[in-house]
This record gives sequence, C-alpha cells and structure tokens, in this order.
Amino acid sequence: MSATSREGADRAARLARAAKISSGKLCPADRTTDLLEAIIAPGDRVTIEGDNQKQADFLAAALAKADPARLHDLHMVQSVLALPDHLAVFERGIANRLDFAFAGPQSRKLAELVTNGTVKIGAIHTYLELYARMLVDLTPRVAMIVADKADRNGNLYTGPNTEDTPTIAEAAAFRGGIVVAQVNEIVDRLPRVDISGDWVDFVVPGPKPYAIEPLFTRDPAKVRSENVLMAMMAIAAIYEPYQVRRLNHGIGYATAAIELILPTFAAQRGLKGRVASHFVLNPHPTLIPAIEAGFVDGVYCFGSELGMERYVAARPDVFPIGADGSLRSNRTLAQVAGQYACDMFVGATLQIDASGNSSTATKGRITGFGGAPNMGADPRGRRHDSPTWLRAGREAGESLRGRKLIVQMVQTHQPNGAPSFVERLDAFDLAASAGFALPPIMVYGDDVTHVITEKGVANLLRCRSTQEREAALRAVAGDTEFGKRQSPDRSESLRRRGIVTLPCDLGIDIRTATRDLLTAKTIDDLVTASGGLYAPPAKFRLAVITHA
Amino acid sequence: MSATSREGADRAARLARAAKISSGKLCPADRTTDLLEAIIAPGDRVTIEGDNQKQADFLAAALAKADPARLHDLHMVQSVLALPDHLAVFERGIANRLDFAFAGPQSRKLAELVTNGTVKIGAIHTYLELYARMLVDLTPRVAMIVADKADRNGNLYTGPNTEDTPTIAEAAAFRGGIVVAQVNEIVDRLPRVDISGDWVDFVVPGPKPYAIEPLFTRDPAKVRSENVLMAMMAIAAIYEPYQVRRLNHGIGYATAAIELILPTFAAQRGLKGRVASHFVLNPHPTLIPAIEAGFVDGVYCFGSELGMERYVAARPDVFPIGADGSLRSNRTLAQVAGQYACDMFVGATLQIDASGNSSTATKGRITGFGGAPNMGADPRGRRHDSPTWLRAGREAGESLRGRKLIVQMVQTHQPNGAPSFVERLDAFDLAASAGFALPPIMVYGDDVTHVITEKGVANLLRCRSTQEREAALRAVAGDTEFGKRQSPDRSESLRRRGIVTLPCDLGIDIRTATRDLLTAKTIDDLVTASGGLYAPPAKFRLAVITHA
Repeated sequence: MSATSREGADRAARLARAAKISSGKLCPADRTTDLLEAIIAPGDRVTIEGDNQKQADFLAAALAKADPARLHDLHMVQSVLALPDHLAVFERGIANRLDFAFAGPQSRKLAELVTNGTVKIGAIHTYLELYARMLVDLTPRVAMIVADKADRNGNLYTGPNTEDTPTIAEAAAFRGGIVVAQVNEIVDRLPRVDISGDWVDFVVPGPKPYAIEPLFTRDPAKVRSENVLMAMMAIAAIYEPYQVRRLNHGIGYATAAIELILPTFAAQRGLKGRVASHFVLNPHPTLIPAIEAGFVDGVYCFGSELGMERYVAARPDVFPIGADGSLRSNRTLAQVAGQYACDMFVGATLQIDASGNSSTATKGRITGFGGAPNMGADPRGRRHDSPTWLRAGREAGESLRGRKLIVQMVQTHQPNGAPSFVERLDAFDLAASAGFALPPIMVYGDDVTHVITEKGVANLLRCRSTQEREAALRAVAGDTEFGKRQSPDRSESLRRRGIVTLPCDLGIDIRTATRDLLTAKTIDDLVTASGGLYAPPAKFRLAVITHA
Repeated sequence: MSATSREGADRAARLARAAKISSGKLCPADRTTDLLEAIIAPGDRVTIEGDNQKQADFLAAALAKADPARLHDLHMVQSVLALPDHLAVFERGIANRLDFAFAGPQSRKLAELVTNGTVKIGAIHTYLELYARMLVDLTPRVAMIVADKADRNGNLYTGPNTEDTPTIAEAAAFRGGIVVAQVNEIVDRLPRVDISGDWVDFVVPGPKPYAIEPLFTRDPAKVRSENVLMAMMAIAAIYEPYQVRRLNHGIGYATAAIELILPTFAAQRGLKGRVASHFVLNPHPTLIPAIEAGFVDGVYCFGSELGMERYVAARPDVFPIGADGSLRSNRTLAQVAGQYACDMFVGATLQIDASGNSSTATKGRITGFGGAPNMGADPRGRRHDSPTWLRAGREAGESLRGRKLIVQMVQTHQPNGAPSFVERLDAFDLAASAGFALPPIMVYGDDVTHVITEKGVANLLRCRSTQEREAALRAVAGDTEFGKRQSPDRSESLRRRGIVTLPCDLGIDIRTATRDLLTAKTIDDLVTASGGLYAPPAKFRLAVITHA
C-alpha cells in the first residue's frame, strides 16, 4: 500500500470509528472524550485552539479526560497555554511534546513541567511563526477549534472573535487532518459562514459558552499623569514629526493614554486627519473617543474585545464588519497587516538593557512570545515606501531602505518599584536555567527606534554606535542605577544633538500633563462616549461602581 | 446622516442599481460592463484579481469597456498587471491611480504611462504588503475576483489555484465592499466551498475559461551542466552542513537543477531525510522525481501549476489537498510560511553589485517586486530556533539571534553574455529616471548569506566588514570586469579562511557535473516519473516533440 492510500485509509478508519459516536457531524457533548479517543491515535500531532482571547475549553477538558492507555505521546501544537487542562494532558501522560507561542497564565507551571521532564518543548514561537509551521512541518492530524455557532453541515460562524480559527482549520483540513469544532449553539441558519463545513468533520455543542477574556481593556481610571506625560511626548516627538498614519499599539496604560488624548492634545496640535488614522488593533474601548471624534478612519482587528460587539457593529465605516452586521477579525491577517502595512509599533515592556533589548521574561516562568515580536521588528522584506518609513530610514543613515518605527514606552521604574532599565535582562538567566539556545528577547535593541520614559525620548535612529545608543538610554533612565551611571554632561550633549529630547524641548509644560487631558476618565465615560453601545464586562463594571 | 448610515445607504443604492441587471447573484456575461457601471462610482478604490498565475481577465476586459464619462478617477489596487486591459483602464481615462506589486509583462508600457502622467503610482509593494494594505488603508470598494466554479448562492470553488482570492475577498467583503466573481462554470453543487457565498455579491460566468499561465515550469532539457555544478555546490556547501530541512526555492534553472539532483547527488551524500524535506513552493514539475524518491515530506503551495493537478491530487501526503481531492493553495499563507517557517530561501537574479544587493530591474521598465523580497530577507520578527538558523547566526557573529539563509545563485554571465556582477545596479538608474525615492532592490546585500556562481561559493555570513563582503563577491565573479579587479592572492586568502569555497574544496569533481545527474532530462521524463499523471501544457509538449 502506498503512503498515500495508507494515509487515506487511516483517515477513513478514524472517521468510521467516530461515526459510531456522532450523528452525522454532530457529537453530543457527553461523548466528546469518546470521539477524541476515536479520531486521535498515539503519537499524533494535535492542536487545541487556545487563542489570545477565546478558548476551546470544553474540548481541552475532554482531551484531558482521555485514557492515557489509549491516547499517549501526543505532540501538542497550540498558540496559547491558558487553561489548567492545557497542562493536564501532559501531567496525565496523554501528551509529551509541545510547540507553542504563549503561556502567560500557565508560565510558572510550564517551567516546572519542563524542568521535571514532563514536557519536552520543540520551540517557542510567535503566533505567526506557529501558524506558518502548522502549514509546513507541524501540520496537525487533529484540530480542536471553537466557534459561536454551527449548522448541521459543519459550517461555522465564529462571531467577532474570529481570531486564529480559519488558519488552524485550513492547516488541518487540507492535510488529511480531522477538524472538531466546539460551538455554543447549533442553528439552522448561520448569520454568515466564516468557515465552510467542508473543512469541519465534527461539531460539539459545548455545555456552556466557551471561555473568553477581555485582555485588551484598560480602565481609564487607572491611567496616571505619568502615562499622560509620556503619551504627550509620544505624540509630539514621534506621531507629529514622522506623520505616522498607519500604526499598531501594544497593550497597556501607556498606549491607552495615547488613545485617550488624541481628541484633546493631538487635536490641539492640528493633527486630526494627519496622524493615527489607520490602526491594526483589537477594538480597545479606549479608542472609542478618538473614533467618535473622527480621528480614526479604520481599525483592522486581530480579534474582538468583550463588550465592544455592539459598538463595533455600529461603526462599519471603521471596523471590518460583514454583511451580517458583525465583526470579522483575523489574527493571521492582522499580524501580516501589523508587520507590513504599519509604519510604527508602540509597545511597553518590563526591562530594557544597555543595548536596548527588551523582555518580559522572568526566571522560573516560560511565557513565550505571543505576537509582539513580529510587529516590534523592522520588516526587512518591506519594499513599499511612505513618508514615515523614508524619514526613519534617513535618520538611521540608510541610503537604500526605510525603517519601521519601533517605540518602547516604559516608566523608569515599574509599579512595584523595580527599575525598568538594567545592565542585564532577567531573560539571560531564564535561558540559562531553562536550557534555551538564546535568551527570549521580545524586541531587540537594534530594531528599537525610540524609547520614551517620563524623563524624555531617546531617538536611537540617530545613534551611530552602540556606545551612543547606550548613552541615549541612560539619559532617559532617570534615577535608576542604570541612569545614574552617566554624567549629566554626557546626557546634555546628546540632547544638544537631538538624540535625547526632554518634554520642554517639545514645548510640553509638564504641569499640563494631567488626567484632565483624558477624553474619558472612567469606564463609564467610555460607555457614554459609545452612545451606550459599549457594554463593559463584569470586572470593569465593578470598577465603575467602586469609582462612583 | 452619519458616516455609517451614509456608507450603508450607498452600498444599498449600488446593489439596487445592480439588481436590475443581475438575476439574484448571477449576472449574464454580456451585461458585465453594465453591472460594473452600476456598482462602481467615480473615485472608487477598485481591485481586479490579477495573480501571479490566474487572471480575472473577463472582468478586466469588461471594466476596460466602461464609459469613462460614468467611471473615472478610479484607484486600482491589484497584485499584478499582466494583461493589456489592466493598462487600458488608464489609457481610456477610467482609472488614474495605481498601487500594485508586479507588472512583468506590462512593465515597459507601465513605465511609459507613468512618464506621460497617465498613471500615478501610489507605491510599489510586495504581494504580502499589498494584501496588508488592502486590509488597512487601501481597502477596495469593489473587488473583481476569479474562481473555477460557483453555485447560485455565490459560494466559490477556486480549484487548485486558490492563490490570492480568499484574501482579496475578505478585504473587500468586510469593509462594505462589493465582490464580483468571474467563474468558468455555475454548478448546483461545488466540489468544496473555498469562499463563502456570504462574501460574494455577484457571479459572472465567463464566456471562456479564465487565463492562467504555467509560470513555474522549467524544462529539464534546458538545464545545463553549469546549472548542475552550481546545484551540487549548493547542496554540498549549504544544504548539507546547515541541515536545511524547511526551505523555499525561487524560479529558474538553478533551483530546478537542485530539485532534479536531490535523488542522485544528495542521496549519494546520505542526505535523504536530512535535508529539503519541507518546501514552501508551487508544485514545480521538476520536484516530481524527488517526491517519488521519498525525499520530500511536504510542499505548501502559493498557487498550483498547470498540468500538475492530477499528480498533486494523487499525493495528499505531500500537498495540501482537501477532502474533495484537489489542491487548496493560498498565496498569503504561503508567503507567511516562506517568511517564518523556512530556514532558507534560494533565488536567482540578473545583477549583483559590490554590496551584494541584487535586482532584476532594468531601465525603461517598472516591474515591481512580486513576492521574492519577503522571502529573501532575514525575518527579524522570528523567534523560534532551529539548527540551521542557529548555525547561520553563530557564523554571522550574532550572539542573541539566528539568521535565515538567503542564497543567491547566479552564473557570472547571463545567457546574453552580460556580466551578472556589476559595480552599480541598473536599478539606480531606473529609480533616478522614474522618480522613485529608493532604487528597487529585490534582495539587499546585508540580507544575503551566500552567493553561488559556477566558480564557487561566497559565504557572506563569515565576512566581518563591507570590504570583506565585496572581496568575497569578487572572488566568485570569474572573468567579469568585476571579478578581474581583485588579485588572485586576495581571493586565495578568503578561501583559506573558509569565506570562499571552490568545488574542489567541497569534494566535487567538476567533470562529474553533467546532465547525467539529472533524474529527469526532459519534460517527458517528468511525465514518466509522475506515473503519467503530469500533463504538461501545450508549450512544453511542443518542447518534448522538438527534443525527440
């Protein structure tokens, strides 16, 4: 028998076993573990959809309940390890190999399981890399995905959080894989088809709605005056002179502050229609006032954000909305858009070293990369030009290329008092203890173009040596040990040469850097700005009550 | 009226006008120009699907026949300008602005139209950049796409050449755009649904099958012994020591020769199962012998290749095949896979300069970039490691990153006798005459890791200065003026340091570098190797006859 017909026969045998459990494509929730035992074989490469936001949690639990005598040595390939069940499959001996991208909530436990040999990691990826490998050499034999609704033919409606689902389904369905979808509801007619039933073998109605987290919501009440000051500097030192129109913001209070002062500070500087017109971004609630002020022409989305559904649906001129009236997001395409259609990425970090490398890694935790590195790097495959990209390239002394702006916003000290600027990143210790070939650096120093602290802006594009770059970083590091190692004279000389810019150099009176500039000061203000369409999740509604 | 409801009303008005022309979603071919005049408005951003391979040629012709008094000032956003009708819309005054990626066959004419002011170019992109911008700021109001079959609900089956269609449809359908598909056939039941009918507004049955070109087929009869020699060097100097498993090949006889000697030369070196196991590549016919020899585990495809349909369908263990039994390709995802899942890109070029920059640009032609730059660049957003990537990084002296291998294969002289190595690229003159901000460089010298000529291999990773890199290039430039400027002593010193490698250093007896190593010497041999499944297009069958 040829490899080809062997593979085909194997798929047919699995489907035949499953046919005894399912009714057509529908599998009852209480038979899910049986279904998985029928379609998965020992040694299989298997994917559980674990996105940044939504989770195929019921399928993850069903797999974790499988009999390790029947299912073992699985190779898990999945974006995010977010749930205890994602690690339970290793602890129970069902799986032993892992390729992944992000393990935020399970990072400490994962490190333990790697240390004691329960989990063998292939590699740690960014999201886009993991999808790429799912298409090439980490193709899944079985993919467990998640959607809002299905019909009896297996057609899926993902709802606004389309996220990774289409890419995972495509990777499996076209490699002879078997695709199982957990859905909240089986309906006769879907609002729209996001994934064709031809790509889906089985549908399981989950006993309760799938887990999803509002990861991108930042309460304006928690934005502090330091955030406002840094946001003003970002706009005055970067958005305005570089004419940044197409951009991506990371998560955090620093970028939330920028979003909240676009209609005040940026508008006062005459920047409406001239900067920040096109975002690649999840529907951050803090973006509502800027959208309502007409500042924003378009937002292309990785995923959605809980509570933003009605507001987003009401602005099809801004968000990617289908004829059915709901958002279609797409993490793969948004990552591509972030990399190739944006002239700037603005992020935040925990630690920056003397080379400008930054990392969120800490010892004893294996967190992975997520998506930020793809956006926080100069895409050397880019060829189209823009005024922003050309100016950045010229400042860097490039004669044949432009540069993407990669901006890191970080207060000199973290909220817990730890200095953000360090001589050596914790990532180096983590790599040594975990046996990684390289330290997990989120954004490399030679990709970073600007670092903003509450003290000032360091323009690394204008630095012509590693020594100069280090000096520019020390100049904005304030009273950290890292900053105090440099003489004020050296910092002043960088300032005279335009490498370091202080608030006063930008015409910013720091006394005006207050919360008064925020167009929304509370979650409730965001609800009001949205015309009542934004419906904050419970944990933020609680904040409203506390605040009031 | 709010912007939102204005936009919605506008779409509704366009669809209402179109309803008088179409019957449901079906529009008769002879009313296509009327349909386009009904759904397009002056000033619209409009996309005609013009892929690397297939073309929405009937829709392009229908648009070119529109009345310029009704349709004018259109902004065309399209991957490829391949057909005269793609420029006719500009000559007839229907469109005046253009954002694109590649204009091979129309490159000279495009340059003329830019010079005389008929076409105003926004920017020249790679494919992936253009798709990214279609999602962000160049969102199309009307998208004209192409597929094999449709049903009456507008569901589309693209067939093996799925290519760009899903991405273009998604970009338009979720921005309130109107999507029109040209198809070869309307059927009651599709083999599979590639694009949901929810994303498609109108379907036009074309009067004849859409245009498609076998761009990736190289006749083994035209592979010369120099190509074989260079292929042997590539395998011995790069594939073997770097253990390259995941890779992408450009188009040309150089890479065709590599594909054809995997089962002979590479197998003799014991490399089966150790190198070239996973490709991101169109189904090159010259890959058939290596697949049949069990050398290749998987091929992920940008598009398909004419004549390869039956062979590809018979190898679902290697190619991405749906449950319906036919290939599903995806140019966007393959570009991502080429960038992030591959450890190596091997390409060919027309000219290389002293910095290692290469270009296929010539004066008087605006060809654009296509897809190669995204793969021919070090993806600095990559974070997962592999033995190949880590070794390349170490050789480059990187302590914190790996490197992607970017290999350029080029004979010292082009077939027309022109030297391939030059002090200055023609791209610089083109940029000056066309008014580009930067010269159109396909692969930048600082991204290139190896250059292979018939004289030897220059390993640029080991060069520690621009002078050393230049010397390494001159050492393999043979008897070109560029090569002769360097003393043999200087080249010999680079050889002693392992920067330059000659065939004899690799254990290659150049007398063995003959066509005898090719596992297929003719198109007919490829047909035989495929078990009769490969059906070469007419122009290659003619070659068979000529050869016989």
